[in-house]
Amino acid sequence: MTGLPAAHGGPVPVLTLGDILLVTLQGELQDGAAEHLQNDITHRIASNPDPVRGVVIDISGVEIVDSFLGRVLAEIAAGARLLAARTVLAGMRPAVAITLVELGLTLPGVVTALDTEGALSLLDRTSSATLPADREEGA
Amino acid sequence: MTGLPAAHGGPVPVLTLGDILLVTLQGELQDGAAEHLQNDITHRIASNPDPVRGVVIDISGVEIVDSFLGRVLAEIAAGARLLAARTVLAGMRPAVAITLVELGLTLPGVVTALDTEGALSLLDRTSSATLPADREEGA
Repeated sequence: MTGLPAAHGGPVPVLTLGDILLVTLQGELQDGAAEHLQNDITHRIASNPDPVRGVVIDISGVEIVDSFLGRVLAEIAAGARLLAARTVLAGMRPAVAITLVELGLTLPGVVTALDTEGALSLLDRTSSATLPADREEGA
Repeated sequence: MTGLPAAHGGPVPVLTLGDILLVTLQGELQDGAAEHLQNDITHRIASNPDPVRGVVIDISGVEIVDSFLGRVLAEIAAGARLLAARTVLAGMRPAVAITLVELGLTLPGVVTALDTEGALSLLDRTSSATLPADREEGA
């Protein structure tokens, strides 16, 4: 029951819900797992029989977003965008948002929603258009 | 980067997707987290503004299902059923299925699907009816 579980630090599962990929991050993301997740998401977008419209990353189970995780999330979003999929970050805890702002890590180019449901409806509303953050970047 | 992360063994996030609750298990579930998850799911079913139709537990990220986790899953399903929600276990790895059968842990009363998408469509098809395993139990 105690000790480092064998599967921890292992691959983070990526769920497919129609044309949306859903990832639920829990706890800390290790180096290897982050790289694996990024690869996994990119390959799924490229190889999915139906075009993947969006990637939702739920971080409601994450207590600490540091610069490493911030960079991973930004890179996943950038990779997905190159493959014509939108990434929405869902469920950020208020304390995490405060810390990110204090650290100056404001995740430019990453679109957020309060929860997964909000992220899905955001992707629904913007199916063929660009998300607000994309427009901001272009401006 | 190494060492036991602070958030591990902490609460497993429960996502709400319309009238479905979605839980993605990753790695090993500790005693406290299991109890917390069971409480969390039960209270969400009871207090959700819309009636919760089903609970999908994705275990594609779980490499080992032992008798402890098997019992936790069965208890979550039993609790959800008492509150009129169906539980579907999604994404079990073939190796896990083989081990469960070898151990004689065949999870009676737990309905399974190959992946989360299959679980959602199973819940869609059986919205007001009972799932196969419920009928089996009654027989």
